[in-house]
Amino acid sequence: MFYLASKTLFVLPSLFTFLLVGSQGENTAMDNVATERRAEESHRQDSANLLIFIMLLTLTILTIWLFKHRRFRFLHETGLAMIYGLLVGVILRFGVHVPRNMNNVTMNCSVNASPATLLVNVSGRFYEYTLKGEVSTVKGHDVQDDEMLRKVTFDPEVFFNILLPPIIFHAGYSLKRRHFFRNLGSILAYAFMGTVISSFVIGLVMYGCVTLMKAVGQLGGDFFFTDCLFFGAIVSATDPVTVLAIFNELKVDVDLYALMFGESVLNDAVAIVLSSSIGAYQPAGDNSHTFDATAMIKSFGVFLGVFSGSLALGVATGVMTALISFCFTKLRDFPLLETALFFLMSWSTFLLAEACEMTGVVAVLFCGMTQAHYTFNNLSPDSQDRTKQLFELLNFLAENFIFSYMGLTLFSFQSHVFNPLFIIGAFIAVFLGRAANIYPLSFLLNLGRKNKIGSNFQHVMMFAGLRGAMTFALSIRDTATYARQMMFSTTLLIVFFTVWVCGGGTTPMLSFMSIRVGVDSDQDSSQVTVSDGTQHRNTKHESAWPFRIWYNFDNTYLKPLLTHSGPPLTATLPACCGPLARCLTSTQAYENEGHQHNDDSDELVLNDGNATMYGDVTVSTDASGTLTTNHKHLSASTMGITSEEALDQELAFGEHELVIRGTRLVLPMDDPPEPTVTLPPPPTSPPPFSDPFSDPFSDPFSDPRRNRL
Amino acid sequence: MFYLASKTLFVLPSLFTFLLVGSQGENTAMDNVATERRAEESHRQDSANLLIFIMLLTLTILTIWLFKHRRFRFLHETGLAMIYGLLVGVILRFGVHVPRNMNNVTMNCSVNASPATLLVNVSGRFYEYTLKGEVSTVKGHDVQDDEMLRKVTFDPEVFFNILLPPIIFHAGYSLKRRHFFRNLGSILAYAFMGTVISSFVIGLVMYGCVTLMKAVGQLGGDFFFTDCLFFGAIVSATDPVTVLAIFNELKVDVDLYALMFGESVLNDAVAIVLSSSIGAYQPAGDNSHTFDATAMIKSFGVFLGVFSGSLALGVATGVMTALISFCFTKLRDFPLLETALFFLMSWSTFLLAEACEMTGVVAVLFCGMTQAHYTFNNLSPDSQDRTKQLFELLNFLAENFIFSYMGLTLFSFQSHVFNPLFIIGAFIAVFLGRAANIYPLSFLLNLGRKNKIGSNFQHVMMFAGLRGAMTFALSIRDTATYARQMMFSTTLLIVFFTVWVCGGGTTPMLSFMSIRVGVDSDQDSSQVTVSDGTQHRNTKHESAWPFRIWYNFDNTYLKPLLTHSGPPLTATLPACCGPLARCLTSTQAYENEGHQHNDDSDELVLNDGNATMYGDVTVSTDASGTLTTNHKHLSASTMGITSEEALDQELAFGEHELVIRGTRLVLPMDDPPEPTVTLPPPPTSPPPFSDPFSDPFSDPFSDPRRNRL
Repeated sequence: MFYLASKTLFVLPSLFTFLLVGSQGENTAMDNVATERRAEESHRQDSANLLIFIMLLTLTILTIWLFKHRRFRFLHETGLAMIYGLLVGVILRFGVHVPRNMNNVTMNCSVNASPATLLVNVSGRFYEYTLKGEVSTVKGHDVQDDEMLRKVTFDPEVFFNILLPPIIFHAGYSLKRRHFFRNLGSILAYAFMGTVISSFVIGLVMYGCVTLMKAVGQLGGDFFFTDCLFFGAIVSATDPVTVLAIFNELKVDVDLYALMFGESVLNDAVAIVLSSSIGAYQPAGDNSHTFDATAMIKSFGVFLGVFSGSLALGVATGVMTALISFCFTKLRDFPLLETALFFLMSWSTFLLAEACEMTGVVAVLFCGMTQAHYTFNNLSPDSQDRTKQLFELLNFLAENFIFSYMGLTLFSFQSHVFNPLFIIGAFIAVFLGRAANIYPLSFLLNLGRKNKIGSNFQHVMMFAGLRGAMTFALSIRDTATYARQMMFSTTLLIVFFTVWVCGGGTTPMLSFMSIRVGVDSDQDSSQVTVSDGTQHRNTKHESAWPFRIWYNFDNTYLKPLLTHSGPPLTATLPACCGPLARCLTSTQAYENEGHQHNDDSDELVLNDGNATMYGDVTVSTDASGTLTTNHKHLSASTMGITSEEALDQELAFGEHELVIRGTRLVLPMDDPPEPTVTLPPPPTSPPPFSDPFSDPFSDPFSDPRRNRL
Repeated sequence: MFYLASKTLFVLPSLFTFLLVGSQGENTAMDNVATERRAEESHRQDSANLLIFIMLLTLTILTIWLFKHRRFRFLHETGLAMIYGLLVGVILRFGVHVPRNMNNVTMNCSVNASPATLLVNVSGRFYEYTLKGEVSTVKGHDVQDDEMLRKVTFDPEVFFNILLPPIIFHAGYSLKRRHFFRNLGSILAYAFMGTVISSFVIGLVMYGCVTLMKAVGQLGGDFFFTDCLFFGAIVSATDPVTVLAIFNELKVDVDLYALMFGESVLNDAVAIVLSSSIGAYQPAGDNSHTFDATAMIKSFGVFLGVFSGSLALGVATGVMTALISFCFTKLRDFPLLETALFFLMSWSTFLLAEACEMTGVVAVLFCGMTQAHYTFNNLSPDSQDRTKQLFELLNFLAENFIFSYMGLTLFSFQSHVFNPLFIIGAFIAVFLGRAANIYPLSFLLNLGRKNKIGSNFQHVMMFAGLRGAMTFALSIRDTATYARQMMFSTTLLIVFFTVWVCGGGTTPMLSFMSIRVGVDSDQDSSQVTVSDGTQHRNTKHESAWPFRIWYNFDNTYLKPLLTHSGPPLTATLPACCGPLARCLTSTQAYENEGHQHNDDSDELVLNDGNATMYGDVTVSTDASGTLTTNHKHLSASTMGITSEEALDQELAFGEHELVIRGTRLVLPMDDPPEPTVTLPPPPTSPPPFSDPFSDPFSDPFSDPRRNRL
C-alpha cells in the first residue's frame, strides 16, 4: 500500500524552470517506448525507496528484539525507530546525491485556473496530467533539489488515510473498558477540557513568543494568532504508544494506566477535530486573522458537529457489525469470513466518515471501542484471536513506520525552519500547557473524587505526556506557508525530545514517585496509592453515577440486543414489553440464561500478559508449578439478583472486589474469598483423555481454539 | 491502501476539449480555498467509491457464509463476487449518471515532450502536475464520459503491486510440498512446456481468426501476430482459486490436487514472464511485427533471465528470513515481532525484485515456497498460526476484490470491443490450447511415470482449467490499443464462462469421472485411481530421482543450516568438514538430535481440515468420541539409518507408506502398522495436571500455543 503512497509524493516547495526541448518528429512508437521506460524507471525507484523503509523496519524489529531480550527499558522501540530513521536521513542527505532529473517543464500558458486534470497536447499527442498541488516559492531558503530526498517524501495524507486509522482503531479496541469506565469522568475532563486548555495556553504563550520575535526581527514571514492556536491544538495531543508500552510491561497501577491511556486516546480525537475547527475559522470579509465572534461560534459548531457526528458514525458501524455477527450466528464456524467481515466493517467506518465529511480517525476510534464492547463477544474464540493479532500487527507496523519516518524527515524534508527563539518558546509553552491541563483539573477532580488522584500520579501524568504520531501527522499535513514550516520543524524536535527524554525517563520517574508496579489489572483496580503513600481501599468509584446509569442501560438493553453474552431481553425488559422482547431474543440467548459461556471476557481484549483468563476460569501456576484453578460461574439471574443489585454489590464489596461481566460475578483469584471454588488436587481419572470435548471448563488449559481440533 | 489506488485512476481513452476560463484576478486566499475544496471533494468521492467495493465484499462474505452453511457448491465465492460486481456495474452504468466534471483543460503548448512532472504557471502561481499517461483518441466508439464510471476504475498496476502479491505468496506458502515434490516432473512439464504450447496454439488459432476477420472486414484496427501470441500467453494461465477450493472441500485425490495446484501456481509465473517477453519482442528497424530471429532469441533470453532472476531473488530472501529467524532464536518469545519480520521480509522480496527489474510476483511465489519450507520451521507455533492466518486473510480479501472488480468492469470499462467472431475464435482457441497442453503432455509423461495419470484425471484437468485473477490482471494492464481492448473484453468473457460454467460443473464432473473424494491427504498419497478404475498401489513415484537428489541435498545441508528441525550438521556432513559443521550448528540443533520437537510439520501449513497433526502425534476421535492416539517418534539417526536409507524405505514401503519428515519416520494412522505404538488406555495419573510443561508429546492435545499460557 505504501507503494502507491510513495508515488503520490509530496510537492517540494521549489521551482524548476528548465525547459526541455524534446526530439521533435521522432516516430510515435519510439515515443511510446520512451514513456514506458520512464514509467518503469519511476516504478523501479519507488520500489527501491519503499525498500529502504522496509529495511529500516526490519532493522528496528531486530534491535527491539535485542532490547527486549536484554530487558533494556530506557529506549522504547519507537525511539529506536526514530534513531534509525535519523541515520538513514543523514545518509540520504549527505551521502547520496542524485541530481533532480531534468524532466520537469514549466510552462507559461493561457490557463487561468488550476484544474484537477490537465490534457497537454504535445505535437499532436495528448497526455493526461493530474494536479498534485500548488508549489510555493519560498524565499530565503537554499533549497536543495535532491531527487532522492524528494522521492522518500510521502504525501502527508498517507498518514491520515493509511497509517493512523489502524493505530487509532487498535487503541480503541484495546482500551481496558472496565478501568476506562471507572475513571470516565476524569478521562473526559483531561481529554476535552484539558486539551482545550492546553491548546489555548500554548497558543497564547506562542503568540507572546511570536510577538517578541517580530520585535527583534527574527520572524521571516507571517505568523497569525490562528496559527498559534493551531500550533497549540496539534502539540496538545499526547501519544499513548511509548509510555503505555512501559506501563504495560511494568504493570503500573491500573488507575494511572486508565487515566493516561484514556486521556491520550481521546485527546488524539479532540486534537484532530480542534485543529480542523481552527482551520475552519474564516472570518468574513478581508479582515482575516482578526477576532470575529460569528466565525468563532461557527468554528465551535464545526467542532461539536464533526466530533459528535464522527462518534455517532463510529458507534453506528460498530453496532451494525455486532448485529451482523449476532444475526449470522453460524458465521462463527468460519473464522476467516468472520475476521474479514470485522476488518471490512471497521474499515468502512473510516471511509464512511470521510465520505460524509466527518473525521475518519475519530470514527474509527469509537468504532474500535464499540467493536471491543459488543462485537468481540459475538466472535468465535478463533476470530477473537485473529482480529486481535491482525490489528496488533497493523498497529505495530504503522507505528514504527511513522516513527522511523519522523526520524528520516528531520533530514529529508527540504524546507525546515529552525528558529531558536521559537523552539525555546515552544518547549516552554508545551510544558506550561501540560501543567495547565493536569494540575488544575486534578485539583478540581479531586474535589469530587472519592478516590483521589495523588500528586505522584499528577507528576507522572505531567512528565509522561509524550507527543507522537498524531502530533506529527497533524503538523506535516500542511507545510505550505512559512508559519507551518516553522511549526513542523519545531514539532519534530518536541516529539524527539519527549520520546527520548521523557519516554526514557519514565521508568526512573515511576520509581522516584513510588508508583506501585507489578499490579495485576484484573485483581487490583480498587487499590490506589494516594498522595500520603498509604494504601487506601475505596468502596465507591468517582464516576459512580454515570458508570451506574451506563452500566444498567448497557446491561439491560444493549448487551442482550447486540451480543449473545448478556441475559435474554425477556429477563431484563419489563413484562409489558414481553412480545417485543421475545421476538428480539435469539435462541442462543435463552440457552445462555442457565448456561453461561465464555464469550464475555471483555477484559481479555489485547491483554498481553502471560496469565490469561478464559471465561469464568482463572488459571495460574505458581512458582512450584502446581496449578490453582478458580472456577465459578454464578448467574445473577439464577441467584435472583438483578443487575442493579449486582452492581451495588460490586461497588460495595470493598475487600474482595467482585467483577461483573454480563450478569456473572467473577471473583478475582488472589487470596481467594469464600465463594471461590478451588479445585481439589487433580482427579485421579484424567479428564482430558476421557472426553476432551465435554466441557471446556473442566480443563484448566481449555484454550478455546482447541475445540477446533 | 485502495484509497490511494482509487486516486490513481485509469486514463480514459477519451478527450475533452473544454477550456475553462477561470475567474481571473480573484484574490489568492480564495483560490487557495477553492483548491482545498476541490481536493476535499475529490477525497470524499474516492472514499465513497472505495466504500462501494467494501460493501460489495461485505455482501459477498455474508452470501458466502449462507452458501457454506447450506453446503451449496455450484457457485464458488469468486463466482459470487463476480455476480455482485456485475450488479453494481449495471447500477452504476445505467442507474447513476454523474456528468464528467468540467475541470479538464486541454492546452496546446510549446512543449515538445511529455515530462513526468509539469509545472504550470497559472497567472503567477505554480501548480505541479504529474503525468498519468497518454490519452489516445479512439475512433468509432461512442465513449460515455461518466465521472462515476471513471472514478470506480483503478489503475491496473494496483493489481500487480497490491492485489496479486498476497494471492501468489499465499499460493506458494500453502503448497503442500510433499505432494508437490512427488509430482514435480509432471507439474513442471504442464506449467512450463504446457503453458508455452498452449500460448502458441492459442496464438496461431487467433491469428487465423484475425486473418479471417480481416477478410470479411470485421476488424476495426491493427492486430498483429505478436498480439495474438500475447493473447495466448495471458489466457494460458489457469487459476488455482475456485477449483482448488472445491477440491479441498471434497478432499479430492491428493495427486490430482497436487498436479492442478502445482500447475496453476507455476503457470501464473510462466504466463506473466512469457507475456512480458512477448512484449519485449521488438524487431530491429521499422519492420516491427514481422519475424526476426535475433529479437526472438532476445525475447527468449529475457524470459529465461527474468524467470531465473526472480526465482533466485525469491529463494534468496526466503533463505535470509530463515537465517534471521534461525540466528535470532529468542525472537520466538515475541510472536508479534516474528510475524512482523516475516511479513516485511516477504514484502521486501517483491520490492527488491521490482527494483531489480525482475518480476515481483514470481519472486514472491518462490519466496513463499521457501518460507514455507524453511522459515516456517523456525517460527514459534504462535507465529506459525499468525502468519498463516494473516496471509489467508490478505489472500481472501485480494481475491474477492479482484473477482468483484472483474464483474464491475464488464460495465464500467468504457471502451469494450466485443467482436462476436473474435470471441467465438477465442473460446475455441482456449479449448484447443488447453487440450494441446494436457493430452499430449500426459501421454508423454505417462511413458515415464510409474503412477500413470489416468484419462479421467486428464479430463478433469482439461475441464477445470479456469482462468482467473492473473489472466484478468495481465489483460487489463494495457488497454491502449484496439487489439488490447478487444483482448480485454474477450478475456473477461472467458473468465466469466470458465468460473461460472466450469467452476460450477467441477463437482458433477468429479463424480461423473469417478474421481475419489474424501481422501485424507496425509494418509493416502500413494493410492491412485488409474484409468482402468482399479486401485493400484505403486512403490516408486514418478519423479523419484529428482525428488531423491533434492531430498538428500535438502536434508543433509539446507535443513540443518537453515532450520532447527533437521539433524545437526555434524551428523550429516562428512567427518572432514567437522570443524565447519560444528561452528554452523546451533546448540538447539544438538538438543534436537535426541529429542525431536514438533517444528517440522511441513504438511501442516494452511491445512484447513479438521483433523490436525502436531508433530509426531496423530490424533483423531472416532464417532463414539473415544480417542485414538498414535504416538511415535523414532529418530532415524538413533535407529542407525541414514536419511538415504530412510528415503528408500519410504519409497519401497508400499502398503504402509512411511512419511519422512526430517529424520523421523511418522506412520500414518489408519489401520496402524506394526511399528506404531498405540498408547495404552489413559494412564491413571493425569499427565496434564502433573506438569503440563514437561513434554508436549505426552498430551495428545498438545497445542503448542499452550506453552505460552
